[in-house]
Amino acid sequence: MIPRYARPPMAEIWSAETRYRLWLEIELLALEAMAEVGLVPASAAEALRRWWQGGPAIDVAAIDAIEAEVRHDVIAFLTWVERQAGPEARFLHQGLTSSDVLDTAFAVQLTRAADLLLEDLDGLLGALRRRAEEHRLTPMVGRSHGVHAEPITFGLKLAGHFAEFARARRRLMAARAEVATCKLSGAVGTFAHLPPEVEARVAAALGLRPEPIATQVVPRDRHAMFFATLAVVAASVERLATEIRHLQRTEVLEVEEPFAHGQKGSSAMPHKRNPVLAENLTGLARLVRSAVVPALENVALWHERDISHSSVERGIAPDATVHLDFALVRLKAVVEGLVVHPHRMAANLERLGGLVHSQRVLLALTRAGMSREAAYALVQRHAMAVWAAEGRRHLKELMAADPEVTARLPEAELARLFDLAPHLQHVDGLMARAFAEA
Amino acid sequence: MIPRYARPPMAEIWSAETRYRLWLEIELLALEAMAEVGLVPASAAEALRRWWQGGPAIDVAAIDAIEAEVRHDVIAFLTWVERQAGPEARFLHQGLTSSDVLDTAFAVQLTRAADLLLEDLDGLLGALRRRAEEHRLTPMVGRSHGVHAEPITFGLKLAGHFAEFARARRRLMAARAEVATCKLSGAVGTFAHLPPEVEARVAAALGLRPEPIATQVVPRDRHAMFFATLAVVAASVERLATEIRHLQRTEVLEVEEPFAHGQKGSSAMPHKRNPVLAENLTGLARLVRSAVVPALENVALWHERDISHSSVERGIAPDATVHLDFALVRLKAVVEGLVVHPHRMAANLERLGGLVHSQRVLLALTRAGMSREAAYALVQRHAMAVWAAEGRRHLKELMAADPEVTARLPEAELARLFDLAPHLQHVDGLMARAFAEA
Amino acid sequence: MIPRYARPPMAEIWSAETRYRLWLEIELLALEAMAEVGLVPASAAEALRRWWQGGPAIDVAAIDAIEAEVRHDVIAFLTWVERQAGPEARFLHQGLTSSDVLDTAFAVQLTRAADLLLEDLDGLLGALRRRAEEHRLTPMVGRSHGVHAEPITFGLKLAGHFAEFARARRRLMAARAEVATCKLSGAVGTFAHLPPEVEARVAAALGLRPEPIATQVVPRDRHAMFFATLAVVAASVERLATEIRHLQRTEVLEVEEPFAHGQKGSSAMPHKRNPVLAENLTGLARLVRSAVVPALENVALWHERDISHSSVERGIAPDATVHLDFALVRLKAVVEGLVVHPHRMAANLERLGGLVHSQRVLLALTRAGMSREAAYALVQRHAMAVWAAEGRRHLKELMAADPEVTARLPEAELARLFDLAPHLQHVDGLMARAFAEA
Amino acid sequence: MIPRYARPPMAEIWSAETRYRLWLEIELLALEAMAEVGLVPASAAEALRRWWQGGPAIDVAAIDAIEAEVRHDVIAFLTWVERQAGPEARFLHQGLTSSDVLDTAFAVQLTRAADLLLEDLDGLLGALRRRAEEHRLTPMVGRSHGVHAEPITFGLKLAGHFAEFARARRRLMAARAEVATCKLSGAVGTFAHLPPEVEARVAAALGLRPEPIATQVVPRDRHAMFFATLAVVAASVERLATEIRHLQRTEVLEVEEPFAHGQKGSSAMPHKRNPVLAENLTGLARLVRSAVVPALENVALWHERDISHSSVERGIAPDATVHLDFALVRLKAVVEGLVVHPHRMAANLERLGGLVHSQRVLLALTRAGMSREAAYALVQRHAMAVWAAEGRRHLKELMAADPEVTARLPEAELARLFDLAPHLQHVDGLMARAFAEA
Repeated sequence: MIPRYARPPMAEIWSAETRYRLWLEIELLALEAMAEVGLVPASAAEALRRWWQGGPAIDVAAIDAIEAEVRHDVIAFLTWVERQAGPEARFLHQGLTSSDVLDTAFAVQLTRAADLLLEDLDGLLGALRRRAEEHRLTPMVGRSHGVHAEPITFGLKLAGHFAEFARARRRLMAARAEVATCKLSGAVGTFAHLPPEVEARVAAALGLRPEPIATQVVPRDRHAMFFATLAVVAASVERLATEIRHLQRTEVLEVEEPFAHGQKGSSAMPHKRNPVLAENLTGLARLVRSAVVPALENVALWHERDISHSSVERGIAPDATVHLDFALVRLKAVVEGLVVHPHRMAANLERLGGLVHSQRVLLALTRAGMSREAAYALVQRHAMAVWAAEGRRHLKELMAADPEVTARLPEAELARLFDLAPHLQHVDGLMARAFAEA
Repeated sequence: MIPRYARPPMAEIWSAETRYRLWLEIELLALEAMAEVGLVPASAAEALRRWWQGGPAIDVAAIDAIEAEVRHDVIAFLTWVERQAGPEARFLHQGLTSSDVLDTAFAVQLTRAADLLLEDLDGLLGALRRRAEEHRLTPMVGRSHGVHAEPITFGLKLAGHFAEFARARRRLMAARAEVATCKLSGAVGTFAHLPPEVEARVAAALGLRPEPIATQVVPRDRHAMFFATLAVVAASVERLATEIRHLQRTEVLEVEEPFAHGQKGSSAMPHKRNPVLAENLTGLARLVRSAVVPALENVALWHERDISHSSVERGIAPDATVHLDFALVRLKAVVEGLVVHPHRMAANLERLGGLVHSQRVLLALTRAGMSREAAYALVQRHAMAVWAAEGRRHLKELMAADPEVTARLPEAELARLFDLAPHLQHVDGLMARAFAEA
Repeated sequence: MIPRYARPPMAEIWSAETRYRLWLEIELLALEAMAEVGLVPASAAEALRRWWQGGPAIDVAAIDAIEAEVRHDVIAFLTWVERQAGPEARFLHQGLTSSDVLDTAFAVQLTRAADLLLEDLDGLLGALRRRAEEHRLTPMVGRSHGVHAEPITFGLKLAGHFAEFARARRRLMAARAEVATCKLSGAVGTFAHLPPEVEARVAAALGLRPEPIATQVVPRDRHAMFFATLAVVAASVERLATEIRHLQRTEVLEVEEPFAHGQKGSSAMPHKRNPVLAENLTGLARLVRSAVVPALENVALWHERDISHSSVERGIAPDATVHLDFALVRLKAVVEGLVVHPHRMAANLERLGGLVHSQRVLLALTRAGMSREAAYALVQRHAMAVWAAEGRRHLKELMAADPEVTARLPEAELARLFDLAPHLQHVDGLMARAFAEA
Repeated sequence: MIPRYARPPMAEIWSAETRYRLWLEIELLALEAMAEVGLVPASAAEALRRWWQGGPAIDVAAIDAIEAEVRHDVIAFLTWVERQAGPEARFLHQGLTSSDVLDTAFAVQLTRAADLLLEDLDGLLGALRRRAEEHRLTPMVGRSHGVHAEPITFGLKLAGHFAEFARARRRLMAARAEVATCKLSGAVGTFAHLPPEVEARVAAALGLRPEPIATQVVPRDRHAMFFATLAVVAASVERLATEIRHLQRTEVLEVEEPFAHGQKGSSAMPHKRNPVLAENLTGLARLVRSAVVPALENVALWHERDISHSSVERGIAPDATVHLDFALVRLKAVVEGLVVHPHRMAANLERLGGLVHSQRVLLALTRAGMSREAAYALVQRHAMAVWAAEGRRHLKELMAADPEVTARLPEAELARLFDLAPHLQHVDGLMARAFAEA
């Protein structure tokens, strides 16, 4: 986890203290459930709960010191608890295996992380919708291959990203459900030492679903799906970031990232205003995506499990969630603060001398009876001349001077082919479709 | 696509002919929809449909030859059609852009592929369930870290994989829905030249949903999610294949892949019977997973799109679906034909001299009043002696000779700690939970 | 392997026939070496060689039919040979294991592929050098963050890519050496049935080095390094392709890919001229890179080997080499045919009103005694005004009107700060450094 | 970077303080070089050097506070230096761009990291060689597909890994050279504001080579190659770790990781001794490898560069080097402390009833005149009977009872076919070849 790209609420989910608190809560819930089904004395469960409600500090260093000797994190933790909480603590963990605690705690951490990410997405969706509404009818050129194609509006562009992040939200909901399982079925998942009722009660208390059938661990295909989903969300972040970077390049300059008072763009060149936030988001997307391969490699644990996934998850779980959280919040800020230059959009839309209307001209000629091939050749010929003139000629003018065209299209109709209106006629419908995706 | 790992029904989805047939069908459906909304003469649509119903052969070579000149696949195709079907063909494709046809056809291909994969999964789930039922109560040792842990049954092991592939099935259903969209909104997605009604009609005819808001293309986050899902399914294939490979190793030999009459295991060593199918599945899983990174890199197309995704998808779409289809069918055959050796499972379960019961002994001592730490130390000491004796001593015997134990546990109770029954008591419940996942 | 992106010389390396011919050649060389060291009758080796020199056709279908029964590719092949070549063929393969033949043949295929790729790189380097020389002094703006920075020349830009591909060439030479090993040490690499002399002789005949110590196979870290290297080369392809795509976008339009007579840029918009080749190269780079993860996953084969790498290599070896070969050749053609617009480069260089000289102004003020912070603030203030004026004001003019500036810099000196010359003074030196990398 | 898997010497390379110290050293060296070529007053360089030699503390928090305002790390750093060191500091950084400092410092960090990794490899190579010598003639079974193949020795197995890590060392040397370049050529690499002499002097002082031709940054193909190389080294770590995991599984138990006094293998099962270190190494290998994809994605920076690589490198550079360093040191400790059980190796070698000699029998029959196919069928038939008898029959016995065999092989010769000696005859030669790789 790179501190520079970590927000405290997400980073805290992954702190040592949070982990130990979760372990204790799970052990206690299990103990209470065991007491309820008569496996341990109720007094033991009550004593431990009282101790815990007293708010004892978690001494991470002391636990670490024990771990250095026993070389097992959960045993170190339980040893520390037993030393603090007294002999009743010996009833803790009976019939459980370490992974029962570890994996259930991990499920809580991942669902909390998912909840934060869902909040982030809501914030981003809100920002995208507001800016999309604001620029619903701000015309700009649509580009394919980086080359001018036909007119769109900036609102439409943002609405497309809105729909994509609405999909991201649905995917993340599904990914959250994948990992929201509780596993207290013991060493090899057989409930040999504890009945399923204990798992059921703990799961209910934690808002999780019992893992239907486990090995020693919750199966890692669930986590692979989770991290794969984060990777796809990150890819969507990259798409919007890339769009902003393109639109801010000097020759285009249709939008600019917010540039703070006092900010410096370059140590060498005082004139620079660079899309550094969007570039940073591009890099963060690469980092988040890099979790997907190790997460996939974690699935094929040996037999009832090996521990190779553990070090991987110590890395990718905090890293991917923390960096994606930071990225989504940063992206929201960029969208909200984006400086939009409608006059630049208009100027760019005009710069190709009407070529963005070439398809309407082509269709009009075809409808007027020319074969598709002939019409295409005619329009392409004139278009290339306009292209070569670099803005000093206009397609309408060349068409109007071509007898093959005028023989088929009256002047007024030809003029109408260069209107912007037909391109904007379905903006409302499209935006309604986009917003309905949320 | 590696021909050796391709089944014809899946390979055909990706043939040039299938693609062209889909393009034509989509163009025709669009033409008919245009006719219905009055944009083109009904007679043109009827004429084209008649021609198509006549079953003209698709001349792939001729289309390729045209493409070599115009350097555009859809234009080449339309040119060929116009030459075959006559002048009415000029009404085809009016107002559409190439990606309308390409992406809608791709959606049909991907959903067909998903349907085959779902069928494959059904077959695999059936085989897993049958073998799991058959070995519901076949005891074997559960292993963590490759080291004996506690008893399970082979049926339970298979049921765990059943549940995992049931999850795979649900994920694949979601992935199918992700890519099942129709896009006929024109060059930059604005319906500038064709009303949304055309798209709606074509979508309905093809069993797809209209893409709510597109650029020139269907957004590629959908496809990234699709291929990421295939990757997770492949990881689950690898997990089961790895299990079989472990169980077939010489020293374990609890199961064997079917070994055909006439088969040869090695060119040099006539004695060999190797888990080559499971190893092959491991490799195929790597291949299928390798689609996930390029699919993620395909998301951030520039502006309203560039064409960089196209070559990637020409590779990964057939490769990932064909290889996963082959892998799932092969895995089903392996599961169905798996030779299971219950006597070897029993022998292995016994080989550690009762150590697989160490936890029950530990818990009994704790419940009888020893502290957790002391009990752990006592059992660990005896266990290490058994371990060192390599099967020539038994934990029960050492425990029975330890006064610290006999002081707490009567002989009969000690004996019961080495029963298998408690480990099997929840098998039925667990298997019911597993099968309920389908 | 995608046929559309396959050149015959590379594709042939991976054909079934080539593979079988290599197998036979290796078996024959081994047989001859065995005869030389007295292990088999010289007459047998001579008989087989005569048969082979007779040029018998390789009947791929017949071999496949045998494989369907014995389920082992090398045994199938040897069985077919024995049927064709007669009883002397029984001396073939004695003491060898299948992987001896497979891996040595694979080494030959990979080194041949590497040789083709090295040729491709030579072609590309030549093209880059020619175009770099041609545009050695064609000024254009250098851009960081997509925003104008300071002047460079187009020749310098190309020379930088030249140096990168010169590095690629050196890396590929190293990668070729990694995989150029011969392995004939038998079932588990112990030379139990054949002396090392046989391996040495075959290695020498094939231009390979004996693998110093093997398992049943050549260790796969070698191949991982090979494919990782191809991935880095592909990334360099993507960088140049991305550059071209940027330079061809409508607003920049400083270069254009060759656009053939008769070519059509879009099925819908006759005016389009798109950088489709460079976009295609971007996609191909993703495909080539996708081999790196499975190649890395292939390294940890079990014990003396398992066969999981085989299916992976059947995919990635042809795919990565064929697609990279195609990409390098296509990239060379793009570089050679690139249409360069120096007047557009000049126009773009001017469009920011002299801001590209802001650093020289900053340094002059600092050298004239202003603190770095104060000078930065002054220049930034004027630069932002120029920026806001969108080309209608010039930095020189604003500086000349600022008494803080004129107090420090005489008019003539101020004017010189806007010269292009200092930016070009080291072009020759840099290009010499770049070309010296080859 | 996961603190649990970080050794201080490597972690320190990546600390904020180290980075700032490197920046200052580079700025100072550049200033001194500028003074030497007459660009700045010698007194300024001397004053700054004196201040620096006074050993001022680096106030990371203060620099961070400035960065929060100016949003540029190098400017923040320089501002802090100017405040500490006085007005002479204004001569620092003149003509440089931030990336000059950042990338040159990064080169120093990466080469230092590479040097540590090379040391680690030396340690590991030493351990492997010692254990290989120790077990030069400790026989064990070689396994392909996890199934017994033919005899090897444990020393040979380790020698194979020695050779692989010797290759790793050579690759890492090459990777170190790739990134050991110094770049002080200014904003777009043209030396517009500083002559190449300054770069040359700084490079020499730092033990780096001047980057022949740069953009604003050192080209990232170099770093991609560096991280790809670490990934291949990590894959080799995984291979050895996987081997140990296999050899420690209960049924095999030929080696054991060192198990410390006081260590606990499981919180639930006191009998457990698990290969947790090797499993941890497997996971760490996945983490290290995960850097390769983002490193490849970093190559195609836009034009003269964008900043997307920066966040990626803030993650992968410390993570990959720190985790690989930890893994190599841990692997060395595992190899050194590995408990080897030669009696278990011997027992396993015997358990297949002589089947490991099947190839020698096959070859003897062939040499005695049987056709390869007939001999193969005969040996396979007997081998399958031995296999089915699970160690209660021996291949020698079945062969001796078969008249087809006895007719061809006298009893003494048959007996010799089951000797171990031929399998060990080339051990010395192979180990010499392996050790010569270092």
